[in-house]
Amino acid sequence: MAPGRALRAPCPEPALASSESELIERYFNGLGAARADVALGIGDDAALVQVPSGVELALTTDSLVAGVHFEAGAPARSLGHRALAINLSDIAAMGASPAWALLSLNLPSADDAWLQEFAHGFGALARRHAVALVGGNLSRGALAITVQLAGLVPRGQALRRDGAHSDEDLYVSGSVGDAAGGLACLRGQLSLPAEAARYLQQRFEYPEARVALGLALRGVASACIDVSDGLYTDAGRLLEAAGLGARIDIEALPISPALRAAHGPDAWRAALAGGEDYELCFTAPRAQAASVVVAARAAGCAVTRIGTLAERAGIALHSGKSLIQFSPSGFDHFRD
Amino acid sequence: MAPGRALRAPCPEPALASSESELIERYFNGLGAARADVALGIGDDAALVQVPSGVELALTTDSLVAGVHFEAGAPARSLGHRALAINLSDIAAMGASPAWALLSLNLPSADDAWLQEFAHGFGALARRHAVALVGGNLSRGALAITVQLAGLVPRGQALRRDGAHSDEDLYVSGSVGDAAGGLACLRGQLSLPAEAARYLQQRFEYPEARVALGLALRGVASACIDVSDGLYTDAGRLLEAAGLGARIDIEALPISPALRAAHGPDAWRAALAGGEDYELCFTAPRAQAASVVVAARAAGCAVTRIGTLAERAGIALHSGKSLIQFSPSGFDHFRD
Repeated sequence: MAPGRALRAPCPEPALASSESELIERYFNGLGAARADVALGIGDDAALVQVPSGVELALTTDSLVAGVHFEAGAPARSLGHRALAINLSDIAAMGASPAWALLSLNLPSADDAWLQEFAHGFGALARRHAVALVGGNLSRGALAITVQLAGLVPRGQALRRDGAHSDEDLYVSGSVGDAAGGLACLRGQLSLPAEAARYLQQRFEYPEARVALGLALRGVASACIDVSDGLYTDAGRLLEAAGLGARIDIEALPISPALRAAHGPDAWRAALAGGEDYELCFTAPRAQAASVVVAARAAGCAVTRIGTLAERAGIALHSGKSLIQFSPSGFDHFRD
Repeated sequence: MAPGRALRAPCPEPALASSESELIERYFNGLGAARADVALGIGDDAALVQVPSGVELALTTDSLVAGVHFEAGAPARSLGHRALAINLSDIAAMGASPAWALLSLNLPSADDAWLQEFAHGFGALARRHAVALVGGNLSRGALAITVQLAGLVPRGQALRRDGAHSDEDLYVSGSVGDAAGGLACLRGQLSLPAEAARYLQQRFEYPEARVALGLALRGVASACIDVSDGLYTDAGRLLEAAGLGARIDIEALPISPALRAAHGPDAWRAALAGGEDYELCFTAPRAQAASVVVAARAAGCAVTRIGTLAERAGIALHSGKSLIQFSPSGFDHFRD
């Protein structure tokens, strides 16, 4: 990490115990995996990494902003985990292998306990996915975390959003709606037995990006997107990218026992609308159905066929033979 | 750009005219240069770019935060330019060729006029340096801009910060101290004739990253850093990285007529202390002195030899034979 660039702050604040470079050295230097392809890590103007031949580089960035993506007092360890997980999920949805991360952290003050916990959450997940933190910066400011992540995928093999065909099936990994349920528990809006509440909260605070599944789906899935804004919204984006629609069977939706306990017969609504699960929603030709099962098994991850694609745009929800009405609205920063 | 990921905001704000994806489509899709090596740009979970063989990838990120790096009311066009320029400067300091950028923008509201100006400033500079904007995200939040930039450099040829030797010379490009002078003018702390004020303000609001110079210095310079926090501070970092010191002649410092007009005989202090110039400070063996001149000419950029390196750590400032006392302090987010 190069020390941040700044003018003297218009309203200088009192001196703190640690300088920016000390904080970077203490908490971020060497965080994540050690990778042989990192020629130069934190400490110069830029990092230098070596890209193997025959691959494409997948590049993404995503932010967590206080008051928007998390609430004051959210545990720093969870924020460190989530800030990386939301980017890992983008890389997973491309079928790419995550490699190098950059971190931009705006902090109101140098809080050692917070930084230690944040680095713990970020570092543990990064090591698990062989991601090296190679640079970034630390600035004073309203709490906001931006991570950029680069991944590698053999040329031409990435899972794009727009590759679906009308005679294919629609799938989703894991279970959906859990993270939103977890947030509702944390906010006291949902009261559940302790174990169910703990499960849902864990799903919100420590989402698992489906990196192994994304890799296993290369050559199997025809299109893929990660479920960040809710299954209904994100499946809609995938379908729209191909100019198609789908019939989704609400009985088929993968709903966890905890979410079922929370919402009873209406759990399908929560499963379609809830965001932040970071599951993968994808399509595959019917002839690949067995390969999808193999991929899911290889990735150690459940996968459920939730519907079939259709020429006609839009999502038609069915319960058995009945058509179901539903109109969720995905979160939009500049509309909601 | 993938639409941002967010929970419903804890304090939902009234609906705005434009959605996040509309704003991205309107202002950022296709911004910057069109590059043949971009296989997939804005609109999927991640961008896909093609990296030629034999190169290393230089990765950097830097942020501008309201109230820290700029003041309320700073012109959006300048912010768009600066947010990219500070990253271009990091890539320039590595001797790398800038290629692909990601942008994370936190905005308090969807202000079309602001976005248009911001995109204009960012886009014009990006096109000039053949940089494609390949992704990012837009979120509601306190105004903060984070850019990530990837560049390319032939393997093993990057200009590192730590390559200086004790028998080499110390150089800086352009002139230093101007941007800080420009900011002082904008704040009304410095009163100057209109033309001089305009020049300094331009240096602050529209800094020129020395990309061409960085490229021309490959194989010539032994170490390089960009001058973001002030020449004294950044030269100190370059020297510290090699465990060396330097003797700098204050009469040799490149000082613009406008800065001279502002500070008279004390201009050298402003030249050493002022940040945000984004010049390059570098070292080269004496035998390369003529090559430095050739590189500067090729890059269309002035370069000045300001001193000589020394075994003894620290910067010794001289005016002729007299040793000069000086103790600036580089800006530090968590100390100043």
